[in-house]
Amino acid sequence: MTQAAPTRRAGRHLLQIPGPTNLPDRVLRAMDRPVIDHRGPAFRALTERLWPGLRRVFGCSGPVVIFPGSGSGAWEAALVNTMSPGDRMLMCETGHFAVQWARIAERLGLRPELLPGDWRHGADAEAIRARLSAPDGGGFRAVCAVHNETSTGCVSAIPEIRDAMDAAGHSALLMVDTISSLGSMPYDAEAWGVDVTVGGSQKGLMLPPGLSFNAVSAKALEAARHAALPRAYWDWDAVIEANEGGVFPYTPATNLLYGLAEALDMLAEEGLEAVFERHARHGAATRAAVAAWGLETQCADPAQASNSLTAVRMPEGHSADAFRALVLERFDMSLGNGLSKLADRVFRIGHLGDFNDLSLIAALAGVEMGLCEAGVPYGAGGLDAALDSLMRRAPSAPHAAPQTPATTPSMARTGQE
Amino acid sequence: MTQAAPTRRAGRHLLQIPGPTNLPDRVLRAMDRPVIDHRGPAFRALTERLWPGLRRVFGCSGPVVIFPGSGSGAWEAALVNTMSPGDRMLMCETGHFAVQWARIAERLGLRPELLPGDWRHGADAEAIRARLSAPDGGGFRAVCAVHNETSTGCVSAIPEIRDAMDAAGHSALLMVDTISSLGSMPYDAEAWGVDVTVGGSQKGLMLPPGLSFNAVSAKALEAARHAALPRAYWDWDAVIEANEGGVFPYTPATNLLYGLAEALDMLAEEGLEAVFERHARHGAATRAAVAAWGLETQCADPAQASNSLTAVRMPEGHSADAFRALVLERFDMSLGNGLSKLADRVFRIGHLGDFNDLSLIAALAGVEMGLCEAGVPYGAGGLDAALDSLMRRAPSAPHAAPQTPATTPSMARTGQE
Amino acid sequence: MTQAAPTRRAGRHLLQIPGPTNLPDRVLRAMDRPVIDHRGPAFRALTERLWPGLRRVFGCSGPVVIFPGSGSGAWEAALVNTMSPGDRMLMCETGHFAVQWARIAERLGLRPELLPGDWRHGADAEAIRARLSAPDGGGFRAVCAVHNETSTGCVSAIPEIRDAMDAAGHSALLMVDTISSLGSMPYDAEAWGVDVTVGGSQKGLMLPPGLSFNAVSAKALEAARHAALPRAYWDWDAVIEANEGGVFPYTPATNLLYGLAEALDMLAEEGLEAVFERHARHGAATRAAVAAWGLETQCADPAQASNSLTAVRMPEGHSADAFRALVLERFDMSLGNGLSKLADRVFRIGHLGDFNDLSLIAALAGVEMGLCEAGVPYGAGGLDAALDSLMRRAPSAPHAAPQTPATTPSMARTGQE
Amino acid sequence: MTQAAPTRRAGRHLLQIPGPTNLPDRVLRAMDRPVIDHRGPAFRALTERLWPGLRRVFGCSGPVVIFPGSGSGAWEAALVNTMSPGDRMLMCETGHFAVQWARIAERLGLRPELLPGDWRHGADAEAIRARLSAPDGGGFRAVCAVHNETSTGCVSAIPEIRDAMDAAGHSALLMVDTISSLGSMPYDAEAWGVDVTVGGSQKGLMLPPGLSFNAVSAKALEAARHAALPRAYWDWDAVIEANEGGVFPYTPATNLLYGLAEALDMLAEEGLEAVFERHARHGAATRAAVAAWGLETQCADPAQASNSLTAVRMPEGHSADAFRALVLERFDMSLGNGLSKLADRVFRIGHLGDFNDLSLIAALAGVEMGLCEAGVPYGAGGLDAALDSLMRRAPSAPHAAPQTPATTPSMARTGQE
Repeated sequence: MTQAAPTRRAGRHLLQIPGPTNLPDRVLRAMDRPVIDHRGPAFRALTERLWPGLRRVFGCSGPVVIFPGSGSGAWEAALVNTMSPGDRMLMCETGHFAVQWARIAERLGLRPELLPGDWRHGADAEAIRARLSAPDGGGFRAVCAVHNETSTGCVSAIPEIRDAMDAAGHSALLMVDTISSLGSMPYDAEAWGVDVTVGGSQKGLMLPPGLSFNAVSAKALEAARHAALPRAYWDWDAVIEANEGGVFPYTPATNLLYGLAEALDMLAEEGLEAVFERHARHGAATRAAVAAWGLETQCADPAQASNSLTAVRMPEGHSADAFRALVLERFDMSLGNGLSKLADRVFRIGHLGDFNDLSLIAALAGVEMGLCEAGVPYGAGGLDAALDSLMRRAPSAPHAAPQTPATTPSMARTGQE
Repeated sequence: MTQAAPTRRAGRHLLQIPGPTNLPDRVLRAMDRPVIDHRGPAFRALTERLWPGLRRVFGCSGPVVIFPGSGSGAWEAALVNTMSPGDRMLMCETGHFAVQWARIAERLGLRPELLPGDWRHGADAEAIRARLSAPDGGGFRAVCAVHNETSTGCVSAIPEIRDAMDAAGHSALLMVDTISSLGSMPYDAEAWGVDVTVGGSQKGLMLPPGLSFNAVSAKALEAARHAALPRAYWDWDAVIEANEGGVFPYTPATNLLYGLAEALDMLAEEGLEAVFERHARHGAATRAAVAAWGLETQCADPAQASNSLTAVRMPEGHSADAFRALVLERFDMSLGNGLSKLADRVFRIGHLGDFNDLSLIAALAGVEMGLCEAGVPYGAGGLDAALDSLMRRAPSAPHAAPQTPATTPSMARTGQE
Repeated sequence: MTQAAPTRRAGRHLLQIPGPTNLPDRVLRAMDRPVIDHRGPAFRALTERLWPGLRRVFGCSGPVVIFPGSGSGAWEAALVNTMSPGDRMLMCETGHFAVQWARIAERLGLRPELLPGDWRHGADAEAIRARLSAPDGGGFRAVCAVHNETSTGCVSAIPEIRDAMDAAGHSALLMVDTISSLGSMPYDAEAWGVDVTVGGSQKGLMLPPGLSFNAVSAKALEAARHAALPRAYWDWDAVIEANEGGVFPYTPATNLLYGLAEALDMLAEEGLEAVFERHARHGAATRAAVAAWGLETQCADPAQASNSLTAVRMPEGHSADAFRALVLERFDMSLGNGLSKLADRVFRIGHLGDFNDLSLIAALAGVEMGLCEAGVPYGAGGLDAALDSLMRRAPSAPHAAPQTPATTPSMARTGQE
Repeated sequence: MTQAAPTRRAGRHLLQIPGPTNLPDRVLRAMDRPVIDHRGPAFRALTERLWPGLRRVFGCSGPVVIFPGSGSGAWEAALVNTMSPGDRMLMCETGHFAVQWARIAERLGLRPELLPGDWRHGADAEAIRARLSAPDGGGFRAVCAVHNETSTGCVSAIPEIRDAMDAAGHSALLMVDTISSLGSMPYDAEAWGVDVTVGGSQKGLMLPPGLSFNAVSAKALEAARHAALPRAYWDWDAVIEANEGGVFPYTPATNLLYGLAEALDMLAEEGLEAVFERHARHGAATRAAVAAWGLETQCADPAQASNSLTAVRMPEGHSADAFRALVLERFDMSLGNGLSKLADRVFRIGHLGDFNDLSLIAALAGVEMGLCEAGVPYGAGGLDAALDSLMRRAPSAPHAAPQTPATTPSMARTGQE
């Protein structure tokens, strides 16, 4: 028992980076079990639990390939299964992660072309259409977009990109990174005509990092037949074939799969629509707080604002990283940092995963008190604005409705009676 | 995987009753271990970890007797070890739990006398002095007080009671219930001259319920020699003697002892002074919020206000229980109910245990939004008042101090620059 | 990372004392959850899960009172709820625990009379009948027996005791300690006419210690109305009444109740009959090993041998405690010690709780190798005898039956073909 | 609570496949924690705990690259970081996994050449020397060997391979798969002159699957500068550079890293030498049992027998898979299957990881009883042979030595006195 310098922080750490997220105990407890034989009948039963839930989350009826690996591995998998050396791809520079994906493509010997962006908007579907329709536009083998750019909090409208490709009559594959939108925001691979969807475990799926996914269309599977990039670990075919027998072609990350099965159950128990609406409420309330503080979101177009994270621009002359360090030190809350050219310029508030109204207010309180302590000029009333936003947009009751007044008055009106 | 009615609440439940409290993961994980032989060397090593930390928390150098049982069991233990049938005791009617203790004394064949109280104050030391000094005051064998009355949130000044007893030159034992103050508010059995301190595991000690304690003075041990109430399970001597050999005279609740060892380490790591100051900050911030809402605390004397819980009086015509049910339903937060004559009249906010600034704001946000939804008239600005209170009373930095502005401006002043 | 003296034992410790037992992970994980409000709706739902399973295990349709406390607390509860000061009780000296219960009765002001026993047999029903029929036999208010004497491994035939009481036309209450038989060996409080059954959590119920039980007949409840021993904590009425509303009259040991609900589910999933048969197989195999070693069981009558533990007599001149210490040190297995007059004379092998064939062989291997290392004279072949016993008495298949040969040959015959 | 068909198996499942292994509770509990910010100071502190322990296990002083991925990913990483398209490699056909590695090399566009083997021996160092010295032997860029071939239980003497390469004056890189030997059998990358060591988390490291490793020599790092295979995810440089700042270039599998830190502590606490000796004792005892049963190990050379697993050949006319299914059904133990051409011909007993004498006996008892039930002809006495082997080779006492007889007699001699 230490008598020396105090070292413990009381209470629960708030992990408000935009993923990994605050894990639900149910997922942790599901993972806290002995490993089983990955070639035995119990394992087979485990995998069978996964497919319906995964397909529902991705909005697909075809294979979802699970990799032990990070989200960047699933990016690589999407490329090596479908592309050949020197293939051209059209990518949209929506932010840090879009650029990273392009860099990986380059490293693998592909020729990505980045449609320029200002890191404050989603992908520009019209620009995509134009580029694809240009004289040399026919050669792109893939169009790649990040659904929810985790570095900026901007959403790209995937159906619009699909429409742009169709309008251009283009046959490229459409590949979409949903790492920070999957399980948090509406997504429908099949309805939206996406050929490869890239996902990860550590965001809306409420799991630790360590698993990533490719949801694959029939067209993508066909492309894989002819793709000439060397591949082994990431090869779809081997996994899909093995999965049919309830196994994997390698030793799978069994305990993360336990967690995945539990998390998929939990999403189903809440209902995906309710999950999306919850994130929408929290996104709106967060933006209301930011507006009240007089700060600016990195996302310049409210219609494109992410519901899983909000990147906030730091006023000139103030360091976002010093602010984040102060919030961590003082309030035991982790906020996301600015990446690449946004380093030290923005901080990011994750409001995704297993999260509720009171957790959100806690997180916003940490920001508001942090702004105060850091001497950042801001307007008061962020919390009240968030409360008001939450109250105006009540969730549909998950159980039987409680006896509440017929009309929920706004907080401002009820106050001070 | 259910497709039917959604059943899951997202995010973490907030348990803001005044104990049991939100358990830290460290304690839960420490308990999540196989049982060991309660007569073997590993168990002996476990018990040796307990005593220094327990003595520090109780402020004593003598024995602390651990019972597998609830706090009410430790009340009973205090009585049956020291009293004989028909013995008279002076107790102070500070609230529900003080009355319960008296009822138990009656059931055991003792004659408790309750000094009347209004359930809005701590014990009245002057009244105790007067009663002890009355002609028939010499016959009391014990004076009993509840340090922190969990049903009202009023603190009794134990040193003043000791002084009153000394002033009356009275030899009665002083017995104190610290169930909801231990490990949350300053307490010092030896310095304060307390003979039997009654404690429980499920509040400031951050454990699940299931253990309770008697910290025993030499005078109490001496009284036990002559006490004639029958006793077996609660007998101090058997436990104290067995403890010297590292065992218990019954099968102990091993996994709760694992948790206790961990919790005592955690209190030491944070530092008891820091723990108390943390609770003081949170108590003050909660009362600031209640005042801003225009509501009344059950505790009528601010100097006696508890730092581990705040009981809030519901405005006339509004049901505290309906309000609590709404908060549970809508915000997944449990608040404490009113007990006995306070039923449906107060709700209690627990702010003790493993808790921090942001958790407190979350809890207060749940109350504020609940008041709004329930149509209870209240003043806006509770959260802001709490934030302001927290910021004005910054904790001493647990680690290295972060780079903060030299003077922390009040939030109101910093806002809107 | 320590480089110094190695301190870690590899592998899993085997806890082969006769309770507490090796906990199943499911129970530990069920307990590894946040506490909930013990007065809220989720808690009520938890308690409702408990009653059917508890009644099934006790074989009763009346109340089962749950106490936060050890088994000795439930002994005390049985007495204080039904007896008045000076009441006489007939108890059977089957071993250490029977004697302890009598001592507790004495401490509480009762007058227990111990029917003498040699600690190598169960209770003698005929002697009970004779004693009850003696001229002064009418005054006993209770007959108390230990169903499975944990200190000796001898079973008392409770139905025979019931018959003896009936034969004597006696109206005493029948109280039975089932602490180490409950959930391991057949027991049926109602069919057997038992008025108070005393149970604990840490044996066949596969829980950590910390809960104990009284299953109470209508006759016992009636007796409680007139019983004059003082009682508060252990009072049945308060608990039974509170339970009807889904609560307890004190703060219950919530996390142990989580575990209890899980354990009851597990017993139901395996099926109580299968649980009992499993223990019977393991008891028989253990005795086969002991016989092969040429050692003697403390239980002198094979028909009374316990299926949850086996006490083995140490050959003269050898210390059972030194042997146990060696087994602990060398094989990381805890064996039970001899108690009272059996101290250092017997060691006890627990084979109860969540346990299977291979665990049993592991435990017996630890004994056999320990005997060898300790230089205790013994016959070889204990493990083979146990294997043979297990094979001859194959369990009914829990799932679909595997493709096994129609007749299971004894191992000796199959070997060396 | 199910009343229908019983579904629960009592007791603990034994996972005796040659990895993943039976996880220690400490590792599971270490992983059962919230995720932390992978770019924050707490994460940095976590990574700093890892390097010394990892280097000790690999026997290296250079970088150990951690990948979120399976062991096959680490194979791929070893290749893509060091090789260029069309490069030739010499590999040794010791069994299924050696062949798999070669297939991966082919898929990546390399030209592996397999030195033929009979799957019953380790790699033939003399054949390697000869092949490297052949006229076209100079062109191999790498020699690859599997230290402990998990499919056969044969060990390849890596120092002899190093000597062979040196004798041939060959400059190829030496790459070694230690997936099922690391942390179980002596290994020393630097002393043995290994350039790339491939490891996984799920065997001797006592972790769930999901992490894999490359320990990299300076020569290998130099080779990486010129290697032309495309690489991104598996790129060493990015990881090594990021690690210097305490981070990873992707979202790491944080919870598995928690487990890794704990497992490395545990290995250090036991002492690596003690860990290796423990596996050696268990390997020897297993082989003694197999010999007593009259069965044959797949490894034909006792000097090359693995200490982490034993592959046992099934007598003609008997199905190894039917036997394994019976053992799983009847004794709740998983054994490893035969792979590729050994399918249904061998079963594999894993005796690695967190394992002790009594667990080993339990596992062998499951095999012996399974042989009996399956009607496989076998000799009796396997368990006795294992006991005897264990007793003859007592471990050095981990704590203070117990009072044991000066000479430990063999079990046979002590028996039947």
